[in-house]
Amino acid sequence: MPNESLKEYVISMRRYFHENPELSFQEASTISTIRKELEGMGLEVHEVKEGGLYADIQGMDGGKSVALRADMDGLPITEDTNLPFRSKNHGVMHACGHDAHVAMLLGVAKRALEMKSKFRGRIRLLFQVAEERPPGGAVSLIRAGALKGMDYVLGQHVISSFEAGTVATFPREAMANADEFRIRIIGKGGHGSAPHETIDALVVAAQFVTAAQAIVSRMIDPFLPSVVTFGTFNSGFRYNVIAPSADLTGTVRTFHREVQEKIRSELENVLKNICAAYGAEYQYEYSEGYPTVINTQEISEIVDSVAEEHLGKGKVLHPNPSMGGEDFAYYLHEIPGTFYFLGVGNAAKGITSPQHSPTYTVDEDTLEKGVEIMLGSALRLLS
Amino acid sequence: MPNESLKEYVISMRRYFHENPELSFQEASTISTIRKELEGMGLEVHEVKEGGLYADIQGMDGGKSVALRADMDGLPITEDTNLPFRSKNHGVMHACGHDAHVAMLLGVAKRALEMKSKFRGRIRLLFQVAEERPPGGAVSLIRAGALKGMDYVLGQHVISSFEAGTVATFPREAMANADEFRIRIIGKGGHGSAPHETIDALVVAAQFVTAAQAIVSRMIDPFLPSVVTFGTFNSGFRYNVIAPSADLTGTVRTFHREVQEKIRSELENVLKNICAAYGAEYQYEYSEGYPTVINTQEISEIVDSVAEEHLGKGKVLHPNPSMGGEDFAYYLHEIPGTFYFLGVGNAAKGITSPQHSPTYTVDEDTLEKGVEIMLGSALRLLS
Amino acid sequence: MPNESLKEYVISMRRYFHENPELSFQEASTISTIRKELEGMGLEVHEVKEGGLYADIQGMDGGKSVALRADMDGLPITEDTNLPFRSKNHGVMHACGHDAHVAMLLGVAKRALEMKSKFRGRIRLLFQVAEERPPGGAVSLIRAGALKGMDYVLGQHVISSFEAGTVATFPREAMANADEFRIRIIGKGGHGSAPHETIDALVVAAQFVTAAQAIVSRMIDPFLPSVVTFGTFNSGFRYNVIAPSADLTGTVRTFHREVQEKIRSELENVLKNICAAYGAEYQYEYSEGYPTVINTQEISEIVDSVAEEHLGKGKVLHPNPSMGGEDFAYYLHEIPGTFYFLGVGNAAKGITSPQHSPTYTVDEDTLEKGVEIMLGSALRLLS
Amino acid sequence: MPNESLKEYVISMRRYFHENPELSFQEASTISTIRKELEGMGLEVHEVKEGGLYADIQGMDGGKSVALRADMDGLPITEDTNLPFRSKNHGVMHACGHDAHVAMLLGVAKRALEMKSKFRGRIRLLFQVAEERPPGGAVSLIRAGALKGMDYVLGQHVISSFEAGTVATFPREAMANADEFRIRIIGKGGHGSAPHETIDALVVAAQFVTAAQAIVSRMIDPFLPSVVTFGTFNSGFRYNVIAPSADLTGTVRTFHREVQEKIRSELENVLKNICAAYGAEYQYEYSEGYPTVINTQEISEIVDSVAEEHLGKGKVLHPNPSMGGEDFAYYLHEIPGTFYFLGVGNAAKGITSPQHSPTYTVDEDTLEKGVEIMLGSALRLLS
Repeated sequence: MPNESLKEYVISMRRYFHENPELSFQEASTISTIRKELEGMGLEVHEVKEGGLYADIQGMDGGKSVALRADMDGLPITEDTNLPFRSKNHGVMHACGHDAHVAMLLGVAKRALEMKSKFRGRIRLLFQVAEERPPGGAVSLIRAGALKGMDYVLGQHVISSFEAGTVATFPREAMANADEFRIRIIGKGGHGSAPHETIDALVVAAQFVTAAQAIVSRMIDPFLPSVVTFGTFNSGFRYNVIAPSADLTGTVRTFHREVQEKIRSELENVLKNICAAYGAEYQYEYSEGYPTVINTQEISEIVDSVAEEHLGKGKVLHPNPSMGGEDFAYYLHEIPGTFYFLGVGNAAKGITSPQHSPTYTVDEDTLEKGVEIMLGSALRLLS
Repeated sequence: MPNESLKEYVISMRRYFHENPELSFQEASTISTIRKELEGMGLEVHEVKEGGLYADIQGMDGGKSVALRADMDGLPITEDTNLPFRSKNHGVMHACGHDAHVAMLLGVAKRALEMKSKFRGRIRLLFQVAEERPPGGAVSLIRAGALKGMDYVLGQHVISSFEAGTVATFPREAMANADEFRIRIIGKGGHGSAPHETIDALVVAAQFVTAAQAIVSRMIDPFLPSVVTFGTFNSGFRYNVIAPSADLTGTVRTFHREVQEKIRSELENVLKNICAAYGAEYQYEYSEGYPTVINTQEISEIVDSVAEEHLGKGKVLHPNPSMGGEDFAYYLHEIPGTFYFLGVGNAAKGITSPQHSPTYTVDEDTLEKGVEIMLGSALRLLS
Repeated sequence: MPNESLKEYVISMRRYFHENPELSFQEASTISTIRKELEGMGLEVHEVKEGGLYADIQGMDGGKSVALRADMDGLPITEDTNLPFRSKNHGVMHACGHDAHVAMLLGVAKRALEMKSKFRGRIRLLFQVAEERPPGGAVSLIRAGALKGMDYVLGQHVISSFEAGTVATFPREAMANADEFRIRIIGKGGHGSAPHETIDALVVAAQFVTAAQAIVSRMIDPFLPSVVTFGTFNSGFRYNVIAPSADLTGTVRTFHREVQEKIRSELENVLKNICAAYGAEYQYEYSEGYPTVINTQEISEIVDSVAEEHLGKGKVLHPNPSMGGEDFAYYLHEIPGTFYFLGVGNAAKGITSPQHSPTYTVDEDTLEKGVEIMLGSALRLLS
Repeated sequence: MPNESLKEYVISMRRYFHENPELSFQEASTISTIRKELEGMGLEVHEVKEGGLYADIQGMDGGKSVALRADMDGLPITEDTNLPFRSKNHGVMHACGHDAHVAMLLGVAKRALEMKSKFRGRIRLLFQVAEERPPGGAVSLIRAGALKGMDYVLGQHVISSFEAGTVATFPREAMANADEFRIRIIGKGGHGSAPHETIDALVVAAQFVTAAQAIVSRMIDPFLPSVVTFGTFNSGFRYNVIAPSADLTGTVRTFHREVQEKIRSELENVLKNICAAYGAEYQYEYSEGYPTVINTQEISEIVDSVAEEHLGKGKVLHPNPSMGGEDFAYYLHEIPGTFYFLGVGNAAKGITSPQHSPTYTVDEDTLEKGVEIMLGSALRLLS
């Protein structure tokens, strides 16, 4: 029962990676495990510094070539599950399912090798580091030639907000532009009992976060989706000392260049003036992140039809684009392709935690379907 | 010129302690240095666990007894000065002048010993740990008998908001009640791009800090002084992950029991309801800190007259009580006494940073006066 | 030159109505003027209490029937233009262009009568009151039978954010669901100098408006367009008296039932808890307003092609749906039809003020095109 | 029983004035009633435009002269009581007890006339208009010579926060400096559904009120009492139109010139920058109001002893100064005197509403004591 063993292989690999997560750009052990697996399958592995590794499976002569990508990094989140294979690396967690991505792509490799006399063309496996941390690993892989000779590229991402047994695709826009900002508000510290001798940076920062809510609610066209999230707020060092400064970081998600630019400048304008209202100073750094992921419509439709074959009618969804950013955008700047979601939520099993939450997990029973859909779509593109 | 050498001694001791600050309840090296100095003067030292140490200087028979107190702990502040004797203990700093307190009390010891045949009664030197961290060291010293047999107690604190060459005294209320609170706001974390699937604890906490300003501005009688300071705000762990929780600490300063109780309950009421407005939960811990420091008026007036002799007319100030808390309050619960300030600011020398700031320092030229006023007041009380 | 005289007629009618605006449900004089015009053309007029009036133009036998609707009410806005025909009714203004709607529909009547031997079927002219004030006039017109026997309905609305010479159509969703809310926050008034004896409703209301920004920015899916606008805020009666209450009104615009319901309940939840944070009480009334305007796609496409004939290629736009509400929604609940926009802005002429602003106006030179497109689309539907 | 009839007279006058309140500078009917009463007593009345009226009661030759002042204006508050003599002038109310002031001073007149052969010196009765509205009536009275020849001046004010049967006096500072500000925030109006095309003045104003709470809570020395009250907030004209502007008024109460100046400038700084944060403009007018009321300590002590005779031991209170402003300050700039409070609250009778509230009233049974204390203090000063 080759399928049963494939399923077991994918699940056991997923658990291994889940138990041993690594942060972006620090995936040494993950890379070495993948390399061992691929070499065990007889594949030649190319490693790319700050990019990851890739390997080719050559079918029969002729045909097209398609690159399949899995990202591999974990997140700086402390896992809060009771899974037997929960993270052994305290403070790091596969809370975005990249463990499943690597496991499924290894499954694709295994299966494709079994059938390599049955297709024409070449499948390239891209195992990429650091999707979670711009500049990301895609840029290095591309620069090192990992797309050279490739006609198409596919990316599959697990997602718990869709039920296992579904796939979600996007004709064109798939993922948002995702920027990062870092802010320091500089007041004047002092004794906690004498606020009038200080400029209380903590209070100024709280006012700023509150005031900035009006950017999305009042300044942006309600039809142009946008998100401004403050991810961290750190201020002060002791309960009875007024904080001399406050540090904030956050992310801006948009789909339109003019919205991105408006938020970038309005955020600074609100910051500047809230600081001035209280006599504080500020620093503002804004890094433009991954651009919008824009799929090729024809290729999205190929995934639709392959997924429907495997999952049944009504199981291919077309939701709104995601606000999340993805460096898969860079591959699509180079060659046609598509990026889509594999549903891994399962309410009946209690698998409902959102991506990036400390209790995130995936319905493992669906991973085999992920292998089949990815490989099936690739084969369709090769021919 | 014995005075010149006393001044040199006090300044060199102050610099030594400044360079080697220790946190509250961790003053091992400071204690051992003080012990060495006192034993070097031939004094018998009593050490009290979590209290500090004390030693007596016995004058002629008869007379009263007076305890003089110096606190010795530093703060968890990273010094930001270019002083040649700046802190060698990174992240710890004598930013409240306790280094000067210890040095001056050692100076008092030296001088008192020189003249112990000239006064009747006993002077007890109290070197106390952990004034900056409730429950403080005073309680342990008292429990260990450090006030036994004492008639009066004096406490002198350097303060940079008054110029060198001045003393500030308080007939009765000197320092506020100082409480501490610790708050956790618990939301629901998630991906930075999908706020609607989360409860953004960081935004809730910012709203709370903003909303809580109205406690002092709108809910408390403007004639009853009060301060609510949020000292720390820590939320989130990554710029693109919505924070599942936020931690806040702070202090409440008041002079009246009913104001203290009103703030304690209104703060929780604002917290509870701001959390409920966004679906968040909360934890609220409130520790009542040092009680109000209430001086004995007659003893305050003795310090006034001694200080005027040393500093001249118009140099003894009577400001409003300070909002700062002090465990000196506990000594005054036991025996009569007074707590007063020695001005150590000096605008002409650029010494203007407030207490607890990373650039805090003191005008060393005034420390000798501090020795004289403390000793002079003690001698007046003995007779 | 019949066209020239039609243009003059429409413009002169528009100016007359502009100069004599009336508020919703108070359009007595407007109705009587329209009646006089229609009767002057020989038409039989049906008047409907709280609905408006309608009249039929019967072409040749056979054919379909189409209703054309113009709304006629002004707004409680004080006009701030220097137009020679500016409002003579102080505090009331045609700031949404309904003056132009009535004028154009009268123009359609004139032109259709001239050619009534050239088309088959019936055109019904609907002059409706009170579009600006729910429950609106459409409901009464429909109840009175104004759609009886009609196959289709068309509504044309002028809009200054699109340039003259363009038309904007919507295949399906055209206008948002538009709800109204009324809030009273009840504190405890008192002397302006003693806030601690009061519950300051004005400050609570300001906090509430600030806190409510987070509903759109943090609680609603960024892909589901929504707007929460506070239109009025009235609190207090004297500068030195603390306000006992605050009154707020506003509107919620959405396209999805679940978003509408979430905002309705979250708005009350924020209100309830912000009030509780300060000890205030509240009243909350929420009236569901006009439902979403949903067009018939085939009819929208007919307007597209007629408009393109009159305006040229590239002049038919397909913007996002509008957030504004419209009781045209009720007609579309009964029969197929479409609602579209006629651009009347003109940057070169300085005509740029948004709808509902005190300086709003329209480029009159485009009104004749409006007549032609409306009539042309009707004729296409009749055949 | 002459006292019984005096009590009845004072209560009946108080009820008459309560039923017929007039706004500041519009006290025509009140003045004419007072004039009638005084002339009925045989006194010669001097009327002062925008000041009020005054009359002298001449005792025996010699002695000093003392002016007694009652203010007479009502407030623009709609009474919300069920008193049989509640305001007949809708929207105007004696919510600060000036009706009782006039009645008591008429009572003093009656009683003083009865005994004018028993005291030396002159009592002048000052009935002043417009205490509630700066510039107030005191300035005009003084300019017209109403203090000419006077040695002392007394002002008695009823107050419901103290129980009937008590008097509250102030050795020196009695009432705060009371300033007024008027603010307009100018945004850009528009349709309620398109916030991004507008600058929402209502939201900006709400943010400003919220942000301004930090002035008192964080910027002012907690020992220097201060109040910033926003009394009115009016913005917008329709629920579905975004407000183009917002109007705010309020009052600032302080006791120290430097606090007054700091608040005046910080308020504008917060306003300016909150507006700039959202692209709005502003207007800011600040009128310095009545200065601090500073009593003459010796005269306050005379009132103390007279009040104690009439009310008993422990019935003379020495509370903190009041935050309310008073143009009685101007009299005290000219001649020595004192301003004090007569308790008229009565919890047992349910008389607890604060000054300026729509349910305000006074315990009438105490008004006779007010006559006696005022007259008794005056007689003591004359001798």
